[in-house]
Amino acid sequence: MSLVIRGARVVVGDGTVLPRADVHMKDDRIVTVGAHTPVSSDTVIEAFGRVLMPGFIDAHTHALWAGNRLDEYEQVQRGVAYLDILEAGGGILATVRAVRDMSEARLAENLRRRLSVMLEGGTTTVEVKSGYGLTTEHELKMLRAIRRAAQEFAGTVIPTALLGHTLEAGRPGLVDEVIDETLPAVHAEFPGIAVDAFCEKGAWSLADCRRLFEKARSLGHVIRVHTDQFTRLGGLDLALELGAMSVDHLEASTLDDLKKLAHSRTFGVMLPATGFHTDRRYANGRAFLDAGGKLALASNCNPGSAPTSSIPFVVALAIRHLGITNQEAIQAVTSSAAELLGLTDRGRVAEGYRADLVVLRHSDERQLGYEFGGNPVDVVVAGGKVVA
Amino acid sequence: MSLVIRGARVVVGDGTVLPRADVHMKDDRIVTVGAHTPVSSDTVIEAFGRVLMPGFIDAHTHALWAGNRLDEYEQVQRGVAYLDILEAGGGILATVRAVRDMSEARLAENLRRRLSVMLEGGTTTVEVKSGYGLTTEHELKMLRAIRRAAQEFAGTVIPTALLGHTLEAGRPGLVDEVIDETLPAVHAEFPGIAVDAFCEKGAWSLADCRRLFEKARSLGHVIRVHTDQFTRLGGLDLALELGAMSVDHLEASTLDDLKKLAHSRTFGVMLPATGFHTDRRYANGRAFLDAGGKLALASNCNPGSAPTSSIPFVVALAIRHLGITNQEAIQAVTSSAAELLGLTDRGRVAEGYRADLVVLRHSDERQLGYEFGGNPVDVVVAGGKVVA
Repeated sequence: MSLVIRGARVVVGDGTVLPRADVHMKDDRIVTVGAHTPVSSDTVIEAFGRVLMPGFIDAHTHALWAGNRLDEYEQVQRGVAYLDILEAGGGILATVRAVRDMSEARLAENLRRRLSVMLEGGTTTVEVKSGYGLTTEHELKMLRAIRRAAQEFAGTVIPTALLGHTLEAGRPGLVDEVIDETLPAVHAEFPGIAVDAFCEKGAWSLADCRRLFEKARSLGHVIRVHTDQFTRLGGLDLALELGAMSVDHLEASTLDDLKKLAHSRTFGVMLPATGFHTDRRYANGRAFLDAGGKLALASNCNPGSAPTSSIPFVVALAIRHLGITNQEAIQAVTSSAAELLGLTDRGRVAEGYRADLVVLRHSDERQLGYEFGGNPVDVVVAGGKVVA
Repeated sequence: MSLVIRGARVVVGDGTVLPRADVHMKDDRIVTVGAHTPVSSDTVIEAFGRVLMPGFIDAHTHALWAGNRLDEYEQVQRGVAYLDILEAGGGILATVRAVRDMSEARLAENLRRRLSVMLEGGTTTVEVKSGYGLTTEHELKMLRAIRRAAQEFAGTVIPTALLGHTLEAGRPGLVDEVIDETLPAVHAEFPGIAVDAFCEKGAWSLADCRRLFEKARSLGHVIRVHTDQFTRLGGLDLALELGAMSVDHLEASTLDDLKKLAHSRTFGVMLPATGFHTDRRYANGRAFLDAGGKLALASNCNPGSAPTSSIPFVVALAIRHLGITNQEAIQAVTSSAAELLGLTDRGRVAEGYRADLVVLRHSDERQLGYEFGGNPVDVVVAGGKVVA
């Protein structure tokens, strides 16, 4: 199995560009990237100067869910207050009920369809969180469904156990149950999986996050934290203290918070699709990068606050609302996102790297964020195979 | 040539829905729309409950251009003032220079590529304006390039002569030249084509628009007006006085303006992609519809203020920023847009109508505007043929 893409503008993913180069792949690896040379190969694709870049790496999604929130969104548009919707059983708990009612096999099929849309949009590596189960049984069901869908996916799925997503009325023991029962069960079946929690008013408190994370760490799990979306509860400081791999959201972070984060080894993950869909609040990407921060951008794909899986659109939002450049945004969805996920074999178009890449319809990579709304990806290669 | 799409959720385009129906097409027409009946046909596509709706009709685009404005956008992002960019020869006049430097054949090829992207995004009928020539020679070249690209397009292109787009330093006689020379030349070669102008400070004055439009009308041309984007110069009143087919933009219109327009036979065309890309100002679609207005939504596809051709994204913006519902937005990009363009044979999925339609990946048409950023169109049929 060998594949050559000829005559491309190669955007490496680390900030460098080769104005005209051929990319030669064998099996699932990139063999050479370089000057126009005659090669024989099973398959040859002519790029005609189009941009070739690493497949997108979407490092924060809730892409496994059941049901939808369309009725609820119509209520929001008619002016119904979000708290009233929550009290009527809507919001995240509506998705929790739908997930609990669905079998593992059907959940896997839901995810498989969404992964296929992502792949067409150029995303070859996707992080997918659990978190709509809220019980040991249903969290394990979600993680198993993610594993099942991942096995049929031409790209790569990285699962995350979002054990502290929200609370539930009538279950005062939920936090203890998650820490004492769900976490050990997840640990037994998915050792080493990242453990995540949403540190926010109405979701998990700082103290409960600390208990969850300290136990998770003692079991050898890495940690991610949803924090500072609406309220600065201290989740960022906790994350830094515990050496979390990332803190995600950061819309409510102060400049001092962003600087502190930038001076750590923890990644910041910004999710501008949520600002677009909900409240038009965006994290300050410019300040974070200027302070030297390690930034990943992700879709946050979920049925309530980010109904999208388009990384090109995330880039378009980032250059408009986060104050960052197209080139910075490209790194944040390729090499930096790979580093965040601990994947040293991808995120760059370079020899020895995994052959996950896309060819855009554009001949200038700045069009990726400049244009918006459609799918600019002409060709998708995952593991050395043309998959879209 | 016959084609059947079976088992679809048919969104007719006029506000009605058939929850499960088959659509039977022969040659370029829809023959029957109705209950699940066995038919024999050359081609059968199973919709499996996905939404089938009219192909999108994009009634306002500047999709023919040369060059790009990427350098300029980087300057905008670095905080350079738009007027400084204009003075340095940027903005619309940069595109004018690039169009003048390009041959008719290459312009047609540029447009052909953009039309192909539009078709993949579900747009089967596209209005395309001239307006980057500003001289008789180059306006005619643009209109000929549009005609040439249209001939190879599986969908339909409706050309518009945008004769009053902007002014040019060093050409005090431009307006007279357009009215006395360009308009008659366009009339001779493209009789009956709609004539358009941009009534705005720094563009065409109200008095000059009146002169252009009165002469155009006397030659039998219908009129469209870009007005009230930034400044209410009176273009809306002029349009109503002259019985224009549409007034386009309307971001600066007052509620009284919108009511006046709503009580006329002239369409309002709103272009939310421009608010998204530039200044986050949006027209008040809710007030206009509540007053009984006839609304079309369009992409405004152009290299400077709306680098998109995605009608699904226009719908997504409209339900978030214009205050209208998904169903209203769907009508505004199908049956209403057809009516605006005077096309009585399309914009509805109904017997006898032209077989221009799309199948979405969704089973609920509300997802069209709820989701955003990618391409939700699975199948495109134009003139009875599957083209994407």
